[in-house]
Amino acid sequence: MRELFHQTLSPACRKIRLGLGEKKLEYAATLERVWEKRPQFLALNPGGEVPFLMDGGTGVSGAITIPEYLEELDCAIRLWPQTGPERTEARRLHEWFAVRCETDIAQAVLLEKINPRFAGARERERGPDMAAIRAGLDALRRMLDAIGTLSDTRNWLAGDALSWADLAAAALLSALDYIGDVPWAHNEAAKHWYMRIKSRPAFRPLLADAIPGLPPQRQYANLDF
Amino acid sequence: MRELFHQTLSPACRKIRLGLGEKKLEYAATLERVWEKRPQFLALNPGGEVPFLMDGGTGVSGAITIPEYLEELDCAIRLWPQTGPERTEARRLHEWFAVRCETDIAQAVLLEKINPRFAGARERERGPDMAAIRAGLDALRRMLDAIGTLSDTRNWLAGDALSWADLAAAALLSALDYIGDVPWAHNEAAKHWYMRIKSRPAFRPLLADAIPGLPPQRQYANLDF
Repeated sequence: MRELFHQTLSPACRKIRLGLGEKKLEYAATLERVWEKRPQFLALNPGGEVPFLMDGGTGVSGAITIPEYLEELDCAIRLWPQTGPERTEARRLHEWFAVRCETDIAQAVLLEKINPRFAGARERERGPDMAAIRAGLDALRRMLDAIGTLSDTRNWLAGDALSWADLAAAALLSALDYIGDVPWAHNEAAKHWYMRIKSRPAFRPLLADAIPGLPPQRQYANLDF
Repeated sequence: MRELFHQTLSPACRKIRLGLGEKKLEYAATLERVWEKRPQFLALNPGGEVPFLMDGGTGVSGAITIPEYLEELDCAIRLWPQTGPERTEARRLHEWFAVRCETDIAQAVLLEKINPRFAGARERERGPDMAAIRAGLDALRRMLDAIGTLSDTRNWLAGDALSWADLAAAALLSALDYIGDVPWAHNEAAKHWYMRIKSRPAFRPLLADAIPGLPPQRQYANLDF
């Protein structure tokens, strides 16, 4: 049995949960509080980060590496396109969402807003860095515009078929949506694309997420938001 | 003819130059001052970032995507291992060096030290952020220790053969080495690994780099440093 070690609001972990769901690969999900540095987890994964997938005796880590690993399994459902130029385009967008957008947006918005809640008194006093949050929200609007433009001309973001590019974008947006920070009115086409992907069966486990002490915003699980 | 648009001190660009060299794929290298937003470049690559590879009519961008693209070309020299578990290990290390280490080290050390030189008067007055530089140098020592441990037990970092993992690590270190910031004495095994990779023919174009107004430190091109 596969076991995915993850954190609820990590966009990279959400993407792997979506990918495993789309590919209909069974797995057990284990919430891992990485800051506790649990010895049993570090014994499996010395790097100590999530997402981390144990597949039989093989441990796989890395937000980019796990998708490549899953694509090389014997599984009929592919999330990379089968032709070279389309695959390169899907990888380019996947990298852009998973590395650049996650750095620019998630680190600014999620970490600045969430960490002070769980931090010590000194950190709480400092409060969130509003300039970082504003820069993150600017980058978020640019990401929504890119998604809108792509989904106006293609069925899914990288071409005809759903790919890891869609999953990376949706994973990041769903983490932000949990805390209520996605300005959906900013781009109607991006919202429509998100409604479609949010309605897929693979999304259901994410929509059931509820962090103790930090419930999702009201529309988080609503398919018609 | 392939054309690689790059910047001299970008670790990601250096990695692609090394990979093209190792694979003996001919290319023209074009220095691209991305901040000038040159219209001819943006017409090819709307994202405007480097590294960017034009290969015939195909444009490929992304520090992770370009290696995957090159590996799918018909080229006898492979920089991913041919067996699944070794390939996953090489991709994991490649991602760690190219995303995590580059974020933690290059952004802290390179950007803080280099950017003020080319910035306006107000930026220069601010001076470099010494706390960020110290955190980057701590991360650099951890990276050297990881390289030392890996190269003590393996021929190259991910296994028997040279891989993109080695190239990503060497590219980042060579960018730092250009400005003189690698504490080679910290880990003898890591230094020995770097001496080996620095001696390879694919490294020569990097060792010939010279930025106007910012010459490399004295030992930069020295194979016996």
